[in-house]
Amino acid sequence: RRRKQPSTQDLVSGITSGNITALSRAITLIESTNPAHSQKANEIINACLPHANTSIRIGITGVPGVGKSTFIEAFGLHLTSLGKKVAVLAVDPSSTLSRGSILGDKTRMEDLVKDKNAFIRPSPSGDSLGGVARKTRETIILCEAAGFDTVIIETVGVGQSETAVHSMVDFFLLLKLAGAGDELQGIKRGIIEMADAIVINKADGENIKAAKTAKVEFNRALHLYPAKASGWSPKVSLCSGLKREGISEVWEMIENYTTTTSDNGFFDSHRNNQNKFWLLQTIEERLKSNFYNSENIKVELKAQIMLVEAGKTTPFAAAEYLLSLQ
Amino acid sequence: RRRKQPSTQDLVSGITSGNITALSRAITLIESTNPAHSQKANEIINACLPHANTSIRIGITGVPGVGKSTFIEAFGLHLTSLGKKVAVLAVDPSSTLSRGSILGDKTRMEDLVKDKNAFIRPSPSGDSLGGVARKTRETIILCEAAGFDTVIIETVGVGQSETAVHSMVDFFLLLKLAGAGDELQGIKRGIIEMADAIVINKADGENIKAAKTAKVEFNRALHLYPAKASGWSPKVSLCSGLKREGISEVWEMIENYTTTTSDNGFFDSHRNNQNKFWLLQTIEERLKSNFYNSENIKVELKAQIMLVEAGKTTPFAAAEYLLSLQ
Repeated sequence: RRRKQPSTQDLVSGITSGNITALSRAITLIESTNPAHSQKANEIINACLPHANTSIRIGITGVPGVGKSTFIEAFGLHLTSLGKKVAVLAVDPSSTLSRGSILGDKTRMEDLVKDKNAFIRPSPSGDSLGGVARKTRETIILCEAAGFDTVIIETVGVGQSETAVHSMVDFFLLLKLAGAGDELQGIKRGIIEMADAIVINKADGENIKAAKTAKVEFNRALHLYPAKASGWSPKVSLCSGLKREGISEVWEMIENYTTTTSDNGFFDSHRNNQNKFWLLQTIEERLKSNFYNSENIKVELKAQIMLVEAGKTTPFAAAEYLLSLQ
Repeated sequence: RRRKQPSTQDLVSGITSGNITALSRAITLIESTNPAHSQKANEIINACLPHANTSIRIGITGVPGVGKSTFIEAFGLHLTSLGKKVAVLAVDPSSTLSRGSILGDKTRMEDLVKDKNAFIRPSPSGDSLGGVARKTRETIILCEAAGFDTVIIETVGVGQSETAVHSMVDFFLLLKLAGAGDELQGIKRGIIEMADAIVINKADGENIKAAKTAKVEFNRALHLYPAKASGWSPKVSLCSGLKREGISEVWEMIENYTTTTSDNGFFDSHRNNQNKFWLLQTIEERLKSNFYNSENIKVELKAQIMLVEAGKTTPFAAAEYLLSLQ
């Protein structure tokens, strides 16, 4: 006998009263590819909207091995010890097949998992980064409506997913390691430019000296970049996720950021700009997928590519022709 | 009494016999916003296609002040002295109003302008980088049909136009200066990664020592990047556009590149990939402009953005609604 599905209204009232089971079920609807589920998910999201927009959203990135899970566990536990409610989500488009390669193994955060003021959810799967990002954005709304005042979004150190996460958070934190050739990644200018903070993890034991040197170097590197629209100067700090040291300093930094950017109006205008970005982004992805998924276009596109390759037409003439078939 | 307009056929036979007046007139048709001219331009391009694809296409970029014009003049004169025919085009989307802010002042290349085996054309104007790039791509075809075996495309040191030029050339050359803080631009990783060669200009007089140091530094930096699909290892060389020194070495390097990439098949496969890129790029730009330029969408988009800003709908629901209006 199948368990009766709760109604949309049940789920909404469950979420807004902080019921984790209702939250999880609603997220499952967001993640579903079943159109009926999507419809239901949209109704729930709309009902949750008036209760959303209330958290600080923090993006955390770093290459594999940098200690993201250990850091997030220490950071999350610090926040719950301050009385906060922490949701940890992930954006990992590579998890399409493996169904949550990051955060999939909750045992990596075994103390945080047991904390009743923490909620951990692995990355949704999806056939595109756009799809994964959309589901995560919608999940943020539900988490906020469920009373989570701090939403952490973890991502892997892959260029595009970092950009997607950057465009859905208020504060973007880059975790780094000292030594081991990791400084060279400093020249990945795009990522450094996005960061509001660089936190050098594993600054413990024998690593401390190298970590301090790295801090000086990153501080110097950050000075090379133009001032940010936020009015915030990115900071470099040291921590040890393992020893749970330097964690409160990271949170104080984020609180300073929130104060600075709330005072100067950036915090709200930034969220508005992010929303507009997602609106346009969604439209453009759908326009493309509608076009390329048309059976007629699939056939004709192949033919036109062959003509272009043979030098019988130009890419521009071929594009005109394909657009005329719509 | 207005001069009679030459027929499409006249222009094509003029171009293919190397007539510069015919070439210039046909490029003017490509650049025109008049639909009748575009139609005529398309016919000319199609007729020229069998005669195109015959040149080496070289992109040259560098920040203002790096000496691009002086370098291109010295380089172009060296090529014509070897019996080559050189076309110099430009991609500068900022020239929309100023009508050719780079290369507009032909007096900057006064010796090359007088050379009957050189053809210099300022950047087309356009309301988007995509439009400017398309016109330049089409102009390349006409120049090749007119017998130019070397096509140089100059661009300003602006991220997006460099990407556009990179996607239409066989060889991408980055001009740099030694000293003056210019090394710091080395961390603009995107540009460095695109370069097949870094040529340090103004390596003359008192600059020589700094230029040699910069060469060592860039060589070291280039080693940090993964190997290129072309099988070519980017090179660093020194030159002085003003003293016309180190110029033949640049050309020898490009000849080596052509040999290497022709032998391993990259040269042709790269051009094919570029064509496919432009085909898809053109389609996607047109899909977007068709959507956003619809009067109905313009009105409704504004309304939906207001609802999103007021937290009454999500960016995703707003996008769905707008797409449903198509």
